[in-house]
Amino acid sequence: MGLITLITDFGSRDHFVGVVKGVILSINPSAKIVDITHEVSPQNIREAAFYLLSSYRFFPEHSVHVVVVDPGVGSKRRALACRSKEHYFVVPDNGILTPLLEELEEVVVLDRKEFFLHPVSKTFHARDIFAPCSAHLSRGMELAQLGTAVSLDKLVRIAWHNPRFTHERAEGEILHIDRFGNIITNFEVTELLTWKGSSGVKVILGREAIENWVDFYAQGGDVPFLIEGSSGYLEISLRNKSAAQFFRAKEGDRVVVVKNSPPL
Amino acid sequence: MGLITLITDFGSRDHFVGVVKGVILSINPSAKIVDITHEVSPQNIREAAFYLLSSYRFFPEHSVHVVVVDPGVGSKRRALACRSKEHYFVVPDNGILTPLLEELEEVVVLDRKEFFLHPVSKTFHARDIFAPCSAHLSRGMELAQLGTAVSLDKLVRIAWHNPRFTHERAEGEILHIDRFGNIITNFEVTELLTWKGSSGVKVILGREAIENWVDFYAQGGDVPFLIEGSSGYLEISLRNKSAAQFFRAKEGDRVVVVKNSPPL
Amino acid sequence: MGLITLITDFGSRDHFVGVVKGVILSINPSAKIVDITHEVSPQNIREAAFYLLSSYRFFPEHSVHVVVVDPGVGSKRRALACRSKEHYFVVPDNGILTPLLEELEEVVVLDRKEFFLHPVSKTFHARDIFAPCSAHLSRGMELAQLGTAVSLDKLVRIAWHNPRFTHERAEGEILHIDRFGNIITNFEVTELLTWKGSSGVKVILGREAIENWVDFYAQGGDVPFLIEGSSGYLEISLRNKSAAQFFRAKEGDRVVVVKNSPPL
Repeated sequence: MGLITLITDFGSRDHFVGVVKGVILSINPSAKIVDITHEVSPQNIREAAFYLLSSYRFFPEHSVHVVVVDPGVGSKRRALACRSKEHYFVVPDNGILTPLLEELEEVVVLDRKEFFLHPVSKTFHARDIFAPCSAHLSRGMELAQLGTAVSLDKLVRIAWHNPRFTHERAEGEILHIDRFGNIITNFEVTELLTWKGSSGVKVILGREAIENWVDFYAQGGDVPFLIEGSSGYLEISLRNKSAAQFFRAKEGDRVVVVKNSPPL
Repeated sequence: MGLITLITDFGSRDHFVGVVKGVILSINPSAKIVDITHEVSPQNIREAAFYLLSSYRFFPEHSVHVVVVDPGVGSKRRALACRSKEHYFVVPDNGILTPLLEELEEVVVLDRKEFFLHPVSKTFHARDIFAPCSAHLSRGMELAQLGTAVSLDKLVRIAWHNPRFTHERAEGEILHIDRFGNIITNFEVTELLTWKGSSGVKVILGREAIENWVDFYAQGGDVPFLIEGSSGYLEISLRNKSAAQFFRAKEGDRVVVVKNSPPL
Repeated sequence: MGLITLITDFGSRDHFVGVVKGVILSINPSAKIVDITHEVSPQNIREAAFYLLSSYRFFPEHSVHVVVVDPGVGSKRRALACRSKEHYFVVPDNGILTPLLEELEEVVVLDRKEFFLHPVSKTFHARDIFAPCSAHLSRGMELAQLGTAVSLDKLVRIAWHNPRFTHERAEGEILHIDRFGNIITNFEVTELLTWKGSSGVKVILGREAIENWVDFYAQGGDVPFLIEGSSGYLEISLRNKSAAQFFRAKEGDRVVVVKNSPPL
């Protein structure tokens, strides 16, 4: 069989995603293809990395995750296939895998042209390179057959910030804003709890401070609240409304957490 | 194999739907998953009920229909799996099944935690509860293994209006407005025809009255017309235009039908 | 197995596409269904033809391509199933296949009602006629069993312009504008190169002239450029921006190419 997931910025209006699937199914007719999203903001590598990080671990072992947000298509940027302990990744070498680098065990540059779709265009490598190579992987081909090994420290990286903690203050940022307007920060709640110890915390976003935590959305009143989101990150939410609109927040905005005096 | 359909308000931009599919395929790798829609207006239970009602009967016997519009996620609202004569339904207990209650033959509360995805979050039960339980159902597990039986009259219901008929007048409402701007009312055409007998009818929406019926869209002229829609409901349409925009109509608006003097 | 692709103007908000898939899977439970797009502009036959033309050849032999943009649904317009050397097409007879007519080897009118879904509505033939007939084709049924042969020259055609070339000047039009705002013209680059010979060319769109060619998007500077797109057509693009917005261009707009004096 073989399971392939897709993350792209191709949108759903054009025929691009369909064509990618056609190429995959021409090589592996029994592949199962799952769309994660095709609505990555055009050429937003960081956003694609977030979606990949948030989704791949929920798929079965040996799944092949294809992520194509590719402003450098046709240039000398390399195409990669990678293997972690349980998953495969097929991506342009532009930093998409930055948050996953530590998990990778093997990386090859896709340079075996006999596995490409010919003629290879300069504008649509998802169709001509990523789709056929991922289809071969999904049929059980080994990485080493698809390309030449490359060392991890040669891969392109993007800035991917973890929060910085000092004794009294932690500084992070907004990772993502979802469809409901929930603001997802890059603070992992378990890490935040360890850091704060018995203190209370105040989360500061722009000029606002948010202090009240809830366990689930319906518990929130009419004011913004803090909640542990489904991926374990600290989220700032507003019941039945968009917290992002309320705070005029956008991805990348700074989020500061300060300790309150500890409760007696 | 096993066929699972999905209706949610998750949208297509985020990774949520992909993650749900990953969890399903991890449990039942040969499941076939069909998206009905993920564009239910956020937290609109009534709209989700409409989509379910309009779609499930076109799927093969033993299909599992998962509907997750779930403002109460994480609270004490129950999660349900239900069986009608031919289909399975997996939903939060918030009224989504109201229009289908009469068809249900067996209902269980999903309380067997060994079938959940752990740790169970308080914000994403589609991933942690509905996906794994529906995957088990699609593999042939019985309802009774997944949870504790509950009687139908204990389920949460939403207001779901049928039209009211008096001798000269019938009062209904707008069930749905589709992508083309067609206004779908809750009048079933066959019922309306029986009621009106040999009389003509006038359909009143806001301050406008519509009287002319057509058999198919292309027959309509440049004015609004009445038509039997594909699900058997009375629709108000406008050729190549949005009737909903023309009438500034929205879901829930009142629609009145009055008899004309019968033709001689 | 059997692979079926879908192109419609149904959008992704309503339940229509899901219902079509339910009907297909009720007849052929092992069919693989791939969405090309459901975002064709409502009733835009020409746009649907473009998506079909750009996608079908990337699918395996014997795929069944269903295209339903169908303003004439319920009228006397005919429903067709067609066969080219390698593919099947199931469409309303309204011109969708115009750019593919030369490839068709067999065409039947779908008139065997025993293969329809009953009762056949007058408003949703995708569900009642196109879905079941395509499902039967995907299981290996022959065209001749599904309907009555009709000759190619009896099919409805739409205007589908090829560029016109004179010695010094060529006149074409905008075929499509994609999600990134790339302007796709109906000039095939190989044909254009042959015509221009050793001359340079200037491409005129509205009041602007574009002269610089690039090989791939990242090569473009801050001004609009010419590029061979992934389907072989001449495209006008702007790096990281929408060329269509820049030029206020829309589908169908005229594009003129004139020769420059040849380089010495």
